[in-house]
Amino acid sequence: MNKRITVAAGDGIGPEITQSVLRVLEAAGCGLEYDHIEVGEKVYLSGNTSGIPSAAWDVLRRNPILLKGPITTPQGGGYKSLNVTIRKTLGLFANVRPCRSFHPFVRTQHPNMDVVVVRENEEDLYAGIEHRQTTDVYQCLKIITIPGTEKIIRYAFDYARSNGRKKVTCLVKDNIMKVTDGLFADIFRRIGKEYPELDQETQIIDIGTARVATRPERYDVIVTLNLYGDIISDVTAELTGSVGMAGSANIGDRISMFEAIHGSAPDIAGKGIANPSAMLNAACMMLAHMGMPEKAGLIQNAWLCTLEDGIHPADIHQPGVSKVKAGTIVFADAVIERLGRRPSSLQPVQMKGGAMPTYTYQRPVVDRVPCGVDLFVNEATHDADELAHQLQRASGGLLQLKLITNRGVKVWPGGFPETFCTDHWRCRFAGTDVDIKAAKAQYLPIDKATIPALMQRMHDAGVDVVKTENLYLFDGERGFSLGQGE
Amino acid sequence: MNKRITVAAGDGIGPEITQSVLRVLEAAGCGLEYDHIEVGEKVYLSGNTSGIPSAAWDVLRRNPILLKGPITTPQGGGYKSLNVTIRKTLGLFANVRPCRSFHPFVRTQHPNMDVVVVRENEEDLYAGIEHRQTTDVYQCLKIITIPGTEKIIRYAFDYARSNGRKKVTCLVKDNIMKVTDGLFADIFRRIGKEYPELDQETQIIDIGTARVATRPERYDVIVTLNLYGDIISDVTAELTGSVGMAGSANIGDRISMFEAIHGSAPDIAGKGIANPSAMLNAACMMLAHMGMPEKAGLIQNAWLCTLEDGIHPADIHQPGVSKVKAGTIVFADAVIERLGRRPSSLQPVQMKGGAMPTYTYQRPVVDRVPCGVDLFVNEATHDADELAHQLQRASGGLLQLKLITNRGVKVWPGGFPETFCTDHWRCRFAGTDVDIKAAKAQYLPIDKATIPALMQRMHDAGVDVVKTENLYLFDGERGFSLGQGE
Repeated sequence: MNKRITVAAGDGIGPEITQSVLRVLEAAGCGLEYDHIEVGEKVYLSGNTSGIPSAAWDVLRRNPILLKGPITTPQGGGYKSLNVTIRKTLGLFANVRPCRSFHPFVRTQHPNMDVVVVRENEEDLYAGIEHRQTTDVYQCLKIITIPGTEKIIRYAFDYARSNGRKKVTCLVKDNIMKVTDGLFADIFRRIGKEYPELDQETQIIDIGTARVATRPERYDVIVTLNLYGDIISDVTAELTGSVGMAGSANIGDRISMFEAIHGSAPDIAGKGIANPSAMLNAACMMLAHMGMPEKAGLIQNAWLCTLEDGIHPADIHQPGVSKVKAGTIVFADAVIERLGRRPSSLQPVQMKGGAMPTYTYQRPVVDRVPCGVDLFVNEATHDADELAHQLQRASGGLLQLKLITNRGVKVWPGGFPETFCTDHWRCRFAGTDVDIKAAKAQYLPIDKATIPALMQRMHDAGVDVVKTENLYLFDGERGFSLGQGE
Repeated sequence: MNKRITVAAGDGIGPEITQSVLRVLEAAGCGLEYDHIEVGEKVYLSGNTSGIPSAAWDVLRRNPILLKGPITTPQGGGYKSLNVTIRKTLGLFANVRPCRSFHPFVRTQHPNMDVVVVRENEEDLYAGIEHRQTTDVYQCLKIITIPGTEKIIRYAFDYARSNGRKKVTCLVKDNIMKVTDGLFADIFRRIGKEYPELDQETQIIDIGTARVATRPERYDVIVTLNLYGDIISDVTAELTGSVGMAGSANIGDRISMFEAIHGSAPDIAGKGIANPSAMLNAACMMLAHMGMPEKAGLIQNAWLCTLEDGIHPADIHQPGVSKVKAGTIVFADAVIERLGRRPSSLQPVQMKGGAMPTYTYQRPVVDRVPCGVDLFVNEATHDADELAHQLQRASGGLLQLKLITNRGVKVWPGGFPETFCTDHWRCRFAGTDVDIKAAKAQYLPIDKATIPALMQRMHDAGVDVVKTENLYLFDGERGFSLGQGE
């Protein structure tokens, strides 16, 4: 791999910790070359709302790696998150967060935890597609894709393999979200077969989070969707007792970004007392990612020896446990002195190595046929039967009304008087040749031209359609969930 | 309130714990009358897939309260969850889960926690509306409504008030989901003003969950959306160390259900050794809900005294801590003997009382005007510019193409070569009088008839539209999120 990387020192304590980290990398003989770019506060204040100048993009795009210090986003509106911009623009699909405890040097109730959370970074509810549709109802789309899921799951398994991990746990809610989370769990099981040496399990996110919170020691690598990963990675970081020591990686197909989790701490900037550990750990993740796992292990073990020897920066200094309160440079030099040593009480780091494989998506070939449409109708009635009659009249036999639900609860045919109804009705239409009274739900192919035609008829009849979702069969299988009681 | 309640003893240990709970309620002078119904295993096995006979529905509907024992759902497919059926049919909108530790009688790392999770129970991703739309892309709808949100938030505040609680914490992800979670947080702040005696705070769900997991003592009442509540209530239950002691309520407008969290434990059924505590705690929640908080407090304090006196059922029996290993009836009688006493080491229960108010939704009057439409297009291209030209041609000037995103990332105009594209394109159309090159996104009212007309033109041009989301202004304000970079 190309050994030329981009370095953005960032704001506040960024420059001093970056300098000390590069010093350690050099002493360990990593042989890296650097292109420095300026991002962050100065760039924001110069009038650039995204905090990164155009010229920096060219550098970023040229090198496969960005090592980034913490950023200060100025107060006041209009400034965009630099991380979100970089992540979205460069397609950084995986967020990787190792959460390990360093007890007794950092106090925690879970001295034996060593968990890595691999979080999908681009999809799920975080795609940011939200609509208010009626007076009562607001909606956010949860988007899960085959390539996005294959990519993150393959990455988690490859990460586990090349970092000498033993087990991968997949967290989903597939008992409720059978289509989306079901896809994620299916792909986990399918790809998992290619990694027979790794233990594999799937857990439901609610009880899974409860177990992570009380027994993190039983987890190794966790792979999960964006929202769940957001929650779980904060839980595991907090459990270690040392949010300030952790690095994080954002992995893309061609470019990846490595950084400390903590902020720019302007109050102690320039004083030479900042703890460079988090950025050093991020740099070690970077080295492993670049195919230099032995260098990553060399540095991490020297760093663990430094902790064991009681040489501690101010933020983790504890009377009785610490021996030296070390400044940034003193601490970095202490790590350098210990290169080649292995820790005695803390578990040494061992990596298997190799650069991470790149993933290429092969779109499956499936037969996709429309078989109906869900029309979502705005209507302030409480009478589902009357609404059903109105829709049946309006459709004029083009398609057949099969079901109406309100917030997912069936209200026609055969609703219950207790059901509270909003002004937002999901009205499911199927082909006219379907037996809608059959005990098991049936769907048959329809002519796609009937969908825009149905829309026009609804409009002409004064039905207020606010959104549509077409229904499809994929290789003859239903691609959508049934309504309750359908 | 009507003192006639429905009782369903359930399966396994259900009948024996129900019997002992009713004995305590009687001894405490609650003056309840009972209609017993049969639900669960026998009903399932008689061929009723929902586990509840039609005649039982009439009883259920007549009484405002159901006290329910645990249920055994038979193995094999086709049996529907009784809880989901009851919850959906009767509109039980709030799930209430008190999680308190009883240290040292039940061991936990958090001896001082006493949290109540109030979880919205009907909306969110759990409405079960999922669609696969293209070869690559699967979707689940997150639905949040004003009445559903007002109801749960008002319930949480009323619960806090009538149970002598001090603080209500709202957990959301409104920094990302500004429309849906933003609504939830806004309504929390608005309704909170009517409860000035209660402390109030909003936290982001990721860091909030991490804090709940490590410092549950700092929380009192938590109110949150369905999915977050599912996760959080499992975390808090697990932290108490005693999932087997907790009761749970499912609250509806006219009917509410109270039950133990644990299962039917068929292995110990009929032996007279089951712990009735969880169902007793559920019954106390029921009494408070019915406007008998003094009776609820009386029983709960007697129960705490029983724990303090070392009289413990087998499942929580600890050598050195416990004095008597009590069977179900012996334990219930020990509680009865202690009616009127207050615990000395454990915190006594004190409730303020009053039956819970009923909520009535007043739909706001808003001016709702269409201003565009998002068409979601299936297309296996990688060329967003070519797709844009195709859409522009097809629309024939009816509406104006403003933006294309793929998984929420802008790909037209001005996309980035690094963006990975699926076969699922969100194509945003606005009115022809909008300046789409303006620095700030603009939206102006459109004629609603243009939307079905646009659909027809797309169909005629061979554009494969898989779903639509209309765009609306509400009282002149955008009701939808902007695309990235829009």
